[in-house]
Amino acid sequence: MVQKNIEDFINEVTSSIGKNKIITDNLILKLYSKEPSGLMGNISAVIFPESKEDVSKILSIAYKYEVNIYPQGSSSSLSGNAVPLRDGVIVSFERMNKIKDLSITDNIVIAEPGVRIDELNLFLEKYNYMFPIDPASQSVATIGGAINNGAGGLKGAKYGTMKDWVNGMEIALPDEKGTRLFVGCMTVKCRKGYDLARLIIGSEGTLALVTEAVLRITPIPESIVTSLALFDNLDDLLNSFIEIKSIGMQPYIAEFMDSKTVEVASKGVDINFEPKGNMLLLSIDTNKESTERMKKFLEDTLKKHNANKIITSLSQQEAEELGLFKIRRNLFAAQVSMGYSLYGNGKKLQVFIEDIVVPPSKIKLAINKIREVSENYGLFVSIGGHIGDGNIHPSVVYDVTDENMKTKVVSWYKDVMKIALDLNGSVSAEHGIGLLKKDGLIMEMTHYNSLKEIDIMKSIKSLFDPKGILNPGKVL
Amino acid sequence: MVQKNIEDFINEVTSSIGKNKIITDNLILKLYSKEPSGLMGNISAVIFPESKEDVSKILSIAYKYEVNIYPQGSSSSLSGNAVPLRDGVIVSFERMNKIKDLSITDNIVIAEPGVRIDELNLFLEKYNYMFPIDPASQSVATIGGAINNGAGGLKGAKYGTMKDWVNGMEIALPDEKGTRLFVGCMTVKCRKGYDLARLIIGSEGTLALVTEAVLRITPIPESIVTSLALFDNLDDLLNSFIEIKSIGMQPYIAEFMDSKTVEVASKGVDINFEPKGNMLLLSIDTNKESTERMKKFLEDTLKKHNANKIITSLSQQEAEELGLFKIRRNLFAAQVSMGYSLYGNGKKLQVFIEDIVVPPSKIKLAINKIREVSENYGLFVSIGGHIGDGNIHPSVVYDVTDENMKTKVVSWYKDVMKIALDLNGSVSAEHGIGLLKKDGLIMEMTHYNSLKEIDIMKSIKSLFDPKGILNPGKVL
Repeated sequence: MVQKNIEDFINEVTSSIGKNKIITDNLILKLYSKEPSGLMGNISAVIFPESKEDVSKILSIAYKYEVNIYPQGSSSSLSGNAVPLRDGVIVSFERMNKIKDLSITDNIVIAEPGVRIDELNLFLEKYNYMFPIDPASQSVATIGGAINNGAGGLKGAKYGTMKDWVNGMEIALPDEKGTRLFVGCMTVKCRKGYDLARLIIGSEGTLALVTEAVLRITPIPESIVTSLALFDNLDDLLNSFIEIKSIGMQPYIAEFMDSKTVEVASKGVDINFEPKGNMLLLSIDTNKESTERMKKFLEDTLKKHNANKIITSLSQQEAEELGLFKIRRNLFAAQVSMGYSLYGNGKKLQVFIEDIVVPPSKIKLAINKIREVSENYGLFVSIGGHIGDGNIHPSVVYDVTDENMKTKVVSWYKDVMKIALDLNGSVSAEHGIGLLKKDGLIMEMTHYNSLKEIDIMKSIKSLFDPKGILNPGKVL
Repeated sequence: MVQKNIEDFINEVTSSIGKNKIITDNLILKLYSKEPSGLMGNISAVIFPESKEDVSKILSIAYKYEVNIYPQGSSSSLSGNAVPLRDGVIVSFERMNKIKDLSITDNIVIAEPGVRIDELNLFLEKYNYMFPIDPASQSVATIGGAINNGAGGLKGAKYGTMKDWVNGMEIALPDEKGTRLFVGCMTVKCRKGYDLARLIIGSEGTLALVTEAVLRITPIPESIVTSLALFDNLDDLLNSFIEIKSIGMQPYIAEFMDSKTVEVASKGVDINFEPKGNMLLLSIDTNKESTERMKKFLEDTLKKHNANKIITSLSQQEAEELGLFKIRRNLFAAQVSMGYSLYGNGKKLQVFIEDIVVPPSKIKLAINKIREVSENYGLFVSIGGHIGDGNIHPSVVYDVTDENMKTKVVSWYKDVMKIALDLNGSVSAEHGIGLLKKDGLIMEMTHYNSLKEIDIMKSIKSLFDPKGILNPGKVL
C-alpha cells in the first residue's frame, strides 16, 4: 500500500520533472529493488533524473513530504548498500550518463554519476589514459555508485581507492531547495577548509546525492609484465609476495586464490595449463626497456619460493592471449556452480562474500585462522583477494532456505571480521558497511576503543540529512 | 595579564603532567608565538606533552577551564595557521618525536606528530623507501603540522598531498576526557563509515590534536632523470610542459620560475651555468634501462620549444653535483635580499607568498593576469611554483612599516585569488586557510555557489570542539 505522503510526492515530482522520468510499474520496481547480496526492498517508484536540476527538484520535494530516497547506480554492491530497505523511492542515475569534459593536460575527466566505469575506460583508452579504479563489477558499476561506495579493485595496491581519484564533486542536499554544492575542487590539490569531498566518498548515499564528478585520470602504463604462478604450499606463495614487497616493488596487480578456489574457478575455463595449486597473479608496470629484467626478477623470486608453474606475459595483450586472468574472472560464477554441486540443483543459493582487510604481512595468519573457523562451522570457504593491499575476500555459498545453515553463516561472517580486527585490520576494505556490516562497524569501533566516532558520524548524518530520508537504515 | 581561568588551568596541568613540561618564561613565549607569515600572538604558556596520555590530560583540563589551545609543530606555516591569535597556551609537539614502528611489507611507518619530515626520510632512506610529501619547510616541518596543514610539496604532481599518505591517526578531542579515537585504519584500504581521517587532515588543528599517525611510504624511484631548461619566452616553457603532459608523462617534479625570479634567486648561488631566462625544472622517475631514452625525450621536447639552455642529470646525485636544484632552494632567501635592494637595508621586510592553484592548462593565462595586476599596483612580483599540479606561488616583498604599501599588498592578495577562481581554480593549494585566507575561502564558496559549505563546516567544528577552544579564529 502506497502511503499518502508518497502519493503526494509522486504527483508533485511528476508535474515538476515530467511523467516520462517516473516508473511505478510493479514488475519493474521489483527488478530495481534487488541487489546481489540477495536483499530485497519494497518501494513505490523508480525516478530517473536527467539533469542536476531534476535531482534538486526530487530532493526538495522528498524533503517536503519526508519520503525516503534510495540512490542507485547499477545496484551491484555487496553489503546491502543500495537496497531500498523501507518504503520510499529509488532514484536511478542511469539517464545521467554523459562524459562532459576531458582535459589530458589537467588529467581530469568530468562525468555524470551514471557513467559506467568500463565505458569511461573505453573512452579514455583512445587517449592512452585510464581511470584506475576497477571493482569486479566495473562492467556495470557506475561512477556515482563507486564514489558512494568508496570502491576499490584489482589495482588497489598501486592506485588506492575512489577517495584518491576524485578531485571534486557537485552534490545535491536533501533540504528545502535540494541545494547543490561543489565540494573539493577541479585540481589535484586544494585547501578549502574541511575536506567535505572525502566525507561524501564512501558515505553510501546517506549524506547527499552526487550529480557530477571531477575525476583524476592516469596514463596507461607503457609496459605490464604479468606472472601467474601456482604453489603447492600457500605459505610459499605468501612468502614470495612478502619478498617482492620487501625489495621495494609496488605491484600493479597482486591477486591470490587458494587451491580449492582455483579448482572451482577453473572449471569450464579454456586455458592451456593445468590449474593446480594456490594461484598468485602478479603484474608489474614498467618501461619497455625493463620488461625482460622484470620478467626475470619475477620468475626468479617465484621459483625461489617453490612455485611449480610460472607463466609470464610481457604485455596486457599477451596476458589475455595466455588466459592469465580467466580463472580470476570466473570466480563468482564458479562459486555459484560450486554451490549447486554441494547442495543440489534447484536450490536457492546465495554467495556470501566477506571483505576484510589486514596488513599484508598478516595475510598468512588471517587465512589460517579463517580456514580453521570455517572448518569448525562445517562451511566450505573459498579464499582469494587483493594480496597487495591486504584485502581478503573469503566466501561461502549457502542454501538460503536452510535456516540452520543461515545462522551458521551469519556467525561465521562475524568471526571472520573478528579475525581481521585481532590482526590490526578492518571489517571492510571496499564493499562498505551498508546493512550487512552495521554490527561489524560497531565491533571495529569497540575494538579500537573509538566508539565516539559513531556518535560523531550520526551527528554528521543529521547535519547533511536532517530528516533522515537519504538511504535510511544504512551505515549507522 | 594572565586571566584567572588560565592560571587555574596552568596549575592543574602542572600537577597533572609535571612541571618540566610547561614553560611560562616570557622570552620563550615570544619565540614560540611568531610564525613566518609575520603574525605574532600573545599566550601564557607553552606546554610540551611527552605522550598521548599527556595530550588527553591537557585537553580535558583545557575543556574544563575553557582555555584556548594552539597546537604547534614547527610553526613554519605561511597563512597564519599556527599563530596564537587570542589568549591561551601553545601545545608544542616537539617532544613527541619518536618513530614507533616500520613495516616495509605493509608499506607503513607509525610516527608521533613531532617527527620532522626530513628526519623521517633519513630514517627511511636506509630501507630505500621515502615519505613523498616534501614541503619547502621539510627540514623543520613536522608530521603533525603537515597533517593539520594538508601539506604538499615539489613531488605533488605525482604523489598528491598529505591526505593521500595517511592511512590512519590517533587523535585526541577537546572534551571532558580528552577522548582519543583511532580514525582511518592501518591499511591503505578500509571502509569505516564516514571518512573522519580525511576530515582531520587539513583541518589546521581546529578539530582535534593528532597524537600518532600511520603513514604510507613508497620506494625511492630506481632512477630519476632531471632537466633544467631556460627559456627566453615563458609561453615556450609552458607549451613544452603541456606537450609533455599530453603525451602521458607524469613528472616526478615539475617546477618553474619566471626570469626575474631566476635572476634574483641565483644571486650568490654557486652554479656552472648562466641563469638567464625562465626556468623549468623537470624530473621523470623511471627504470635504469630507460634513462637514456627519457633524457633524449626530455631534451628533444624542450629544444623543440626553444629552450636555449638544457642541463640534464641521470640521477639525483648528479643533479646535486650539477646544482640543478640550487636556484629553486634559494628562492625564499633571495626574495628577502631582493626586498633590501628594493627598499633599503634595515627595513622591516615581509615576504608575502600566494598559494593559488589553477588547472595546469590555465597556468599561462594565470601568470599573464598576475603580472598585469601586480604592475597596476606597482608591486614587484616573483612568480614560481609547482607547474605539475597547477599550484602557483606569486610573492611580493614589502616594508611592513609602509601602511600604504601594506594596503596595496592586501588588495593584490585578493586580486590574485580572484584570478584563480575565474580560471576554475582555488584560493589555496597547500598553505591552507589559517587567518590570511578566511576571506578567500568565502570568496571561493561564493564563486562556486557553494556557501552552505561554510555552515556545514561550522557545525562540524562545533561537533568536534563544542567550546571552540582549538586553534580559535582559524579557517572559519
